[in-house]
Amino acid sequence: MTHSLMTIRRANEADLPAVVRLLADDPLGALRERLSDPLPQAYRAAFAAMEAQTGNELLVAVAGDEVLGCLQLTLIPGISRLGATRAQIEGVRVAAAHRGGGVGEALIRDAIARAAQAGCALVQLTTDLSRPDAQRFYERLGFEATHVGFKLQITPA
Amino acid sequence: MTHSLMTIRRANEADLPAVVRLLADDPLGALRERLSDPLPQAYRAAFAAMEAQTGNELLVAVAGDEVLGCLQLTLIPGISRLGATRAQIEGVRVAAAHRGGGVGEALIRDAIARAAQAGCALVQLTTDLSRPDAQRFYERLGFEATHVGFKLQITPA
Repeated sequence: MTHSLMTIRRANEADLPAVVRLLADDPLGALRERLSDPLPQAYRAAFAAMEAQTGNELLVAVAGDEVLGCLQLTLIPGISRLGATRAQIEGVRVAAAHRGGGVGEALIRDAIARAAQAGCALVQLTTDLSRPDAQRFYERLGFEATHVGFKLQITPA
Repeated sequence: MTHSLMTIRRANEADLPAVVRLLADDPLGALRERLSDPLPQAYRAAFAAMEAQTGNELLVAVAGDEVLGCLQLTLIPGISRLGATRAQIEGVRVAAAHRGGGVGEALIRDAIARAAQAGCALVQLTTDLSRPDAQRFYERLGFEATHVGFKLQITPA
């Protein structure tokens, strides 16, 4: 398959059902997402909250009307490392029919370019230990597995 | 030593030199920070950028005039996990003279409480593989080491 017409852009609200479909079409995501029509309001509220936060972007790779993949890019200013802004990538997903076709790599490279443009010196992400293919993918793109990623589930107050 | 008078609050700009001192007093931080008087402007610009981003907070543990520790808490709305907002912790440091005294635990517990109050269901952080003590610390507080943390240094455009 060719992706010569693939473009990567910021998502708009009309992309949300396709993005949730991508997130749900995944061994871990299947347990965590809820794909209904209409889409659960929580997703629309979350998109609005992302839009309202400076530096928080949902990116989609699209070919025509089809959403091939997505990721979230967040630019996080901080004091560490001489006041560096770090770019963080979350929720990288590629549609099953398009895996292995370079969509994920194009998304990551686009995110890195946006991070550099925004003055970031560091891009970071974590990947679940149950995803060895993802680990090889990020190593191939130059990322180094220097950290342990910890998570704590909490109960919202 | 007692920390009965320790409080945890958002940092203000006057706390910045003490925070940079904490960040620099660390095997990794010593290579990355620059502690001068006056403080490099980059730190003040970074603090202003943090203040300008909704959900990005620098917290300090203080006793009287002394800053005992710090961390950065960022609330990141996203689409994954039914539109969950995740809380992320970065740059946790405790002054050498106060390590082992519960300052770090108090900071983390305060950050978790703030995250819950803000409606987060997940708190996440990464720690460098070279910090085994930190890994045990987070495990003791209930965090699970479920992820690999990748970093990529880039050149700002």
